[in-house]
Amino acid sequence: MKLYALEAGRISEPRTIADAGEFGLIRRITAALKSGPQALVGPGDDAAVVATPDGRVVASTDLLLENRHFRRDWSTANDIGHKAAARSFSDIVAMGAQPTSLLVGLAAPGELELSWVDGLLAGLIEECAQVGAVVVGGDVSASDQIVLAVTALGELGERQPVLLSGAHVGDIVAVCGRLGWAAAGFAVLSRGFRSPVQIVNAHRRPEPPYAQGLQAADLGATAMTDVSDGLIADLGHIADASNVRIDLRGEALTPNSKVRDVASALNVDPMTWVLTGGDDYALVATFPNFASLPPEWTAVGLVREGSGVRVDGLRWSEGGHEHFR
Amino acid sequence: MKLYALEAGRISEPRTIADAGEFGLIRRITAALKSGPQALVGPGDDAAVVATPDGRVVASTDLLLENRHFRRDWSTANDIGHKAAARSFSDIVAMGAQPTSLLVGLAAPGELELSWVDGLLAGLIEECAQVGAVVVGGDVSASDQIVLAVTALGELGERQPVLLSGAHVGDIVAVCGRLGWAAAGFAVLSRGFRSPVQIVNAHRRPEPPYAQGLQAADLGATAMTDVSDGLIADLGHIADASNVRIDLRGEALTPNSKVRDVASALNVDPMTWVLTGGDDYALVATFPNFASLPPEWTAVGLVREGSGVRVDGLRWSEGGHEHFR
Repeated sequence: MKLYALEAGRISEPRTIADAGEFGLIRRITAALKSGPQALVGPGDDAAVVATPDGRVVASTDLLLENRHFRRDWSTANDIGHKAAARSFSDIVAMGAQPTSLLVGLAAPGELELSWVDGLLAGLIEECAQVGAVVVGGDVSASDQIVLAVTALGELGERQPVLLSGAHVGDIVAVCGRLGWAAAGFAVLSRGFRSPVQIVNAHRRPEPPYAQGLQAADLGATAMTDVSDGLIADLGHIADASNVRIDLRGEALTPNSKVRDVASALNVDPMTWVLTGGDDYALVATFPNFASLPPEWTAVGLVREGSGVRVDGLRWSEGGHEHFR
Repeated sequence: MKLYALEAGRISEPRTIADAGEFGLIRRITAALKSGPQALVGPGDDAAVVATPDGRVVASTDLLLENRHFRRDWSTANDIGHKAAARSFSDIVAMGAQPTSLLVGLAAPGELELSWVDGLLAGLIEECAQVGAVVVGGDVSASDQIVLAVTALGELGERQPVLLSGAHVGDIVAVCGRLGWAAAGFAVLSRGFRSPVQIVNAHRRPEPPYAQGLQAADLGATAMTDVSDGLIADLGHIADASNVRIDLRGEALTPNSKVRDVASALNVDPMTWVLTGGDDYALVATFPNFASLPPEWTAVGLVREGSGVRVDGLRWSEGGHEHFR
């Protein structure tokens, strides 16, 4: 660094967040952020003020911890920024709402390089741009490991929120987005491989089908959620909240060929990834009938009387993952 | 625990959050929460929906990390719940807004006892009740140390937000709430003492003057912030944002006698705590004239032309603390 500092003629150029200090870090972050008309008061004050034209705000919060939700040797700072924002936006979209803004808490070790923070911020801002949201506030703290606490806000417009509890017997269950890709990517990375790139990148940077959440709400979806814990686990929440049984057709959930190839190479049943893998942030919803099913969605099952989730009439024994076990 | 389990006749009574599992923990938390009319959709769905009657929402997020923001051997779980909520509500109130709701991210080790989580939750709920807010959502994750990520939402009613940038030359600077108490309590605890209890409790469980934030806004405060980094540092933010100088009168900031007694016992200058101690969440605001100053507030200085913050015409050399240095 001394060489660089001498070459650049700036002896005190800060390299780490400890060099920048807390207020220096906040100034750096604030300067990078973009604004938008929804941010009536943006970053830098005690709190943000965000426009909520229809008199309601949709809000969801997520924690992402280093070495639990991401690894710095597997994903770039930019990837992690994208994923952190996507994870929260996905929850907003699964209510049938439009994300408007993000608050970001960042705790990190003092020796973390500012270039990493810049990359994280760029990823957050790029993912925000995909949905028309802006970062309106946040908090920074020192910590031993990186912690991200992301809160997304959104607006329903004149829509009613699409809840977990609205599924009716006879509804069609449909999916939009990838299933099992991120889980396959995680398996590849876990075994020390870095390819196929498309599969690995699905883990690093999910691509939730944002537009289809609002589309489903407008077309009368009765219940909806994003697949973050795994299809079976997340449909289980709909089944519980709606007091119904969800019957899936295994045939309709045939894994993508790229996922199958990876599964074959790793000697894994790819249906495990499809049924229990989270982190792709696909949307799964129930629709009153086939006529209401948008073309981007794939019918994968039916809502019946009863409880729980079945695949071809059988309970899936593994279920979704529970993080504390 | 075995004895208890046998006595209670329930062999599998969960004791830790690992026993309960992620979904069990979420169910336990959700069952403890109270609802309110502002929570149009409360905890348990993908996201919460909160009423924002005037078409705006005020939002602030804070991270609290074990052994940085709190210690389990210094504070009870209940204290920590109170403090976590108070910290975020204080930011909402400092905008001249009324807190309405809270989202809480909790990361914790699997071996953490459920009784600790219950205590935390009770503290959060009790602090919410003080301002009429409710917990509307959250997230849980496993981690090595306890992490709390708290986002508070609030409403302005028909008020304009009171910003950092509104102070004018000639305004009166006034304070409401404790200064230096929490810093004194921290000093006492740091040296292994546990008394005087009132001072130690000021660190454990701050008592922000919530009602006076709205009062100040209604009475025409031109700028306001809560004292979380220290009076000099936080007034420095007002000075910077408003392009003014803040002149404090040291005489008006005479430490409380209990704070003085502790300072004397520990051989510390109590003005250091008054001027640079955070965590009491006092409010400091600027008012256009003495007639507008509410009785609960104490005039401590004047807004002048220039920059920075001075005490009796002198710069305070220590300034507020910066956490990364």
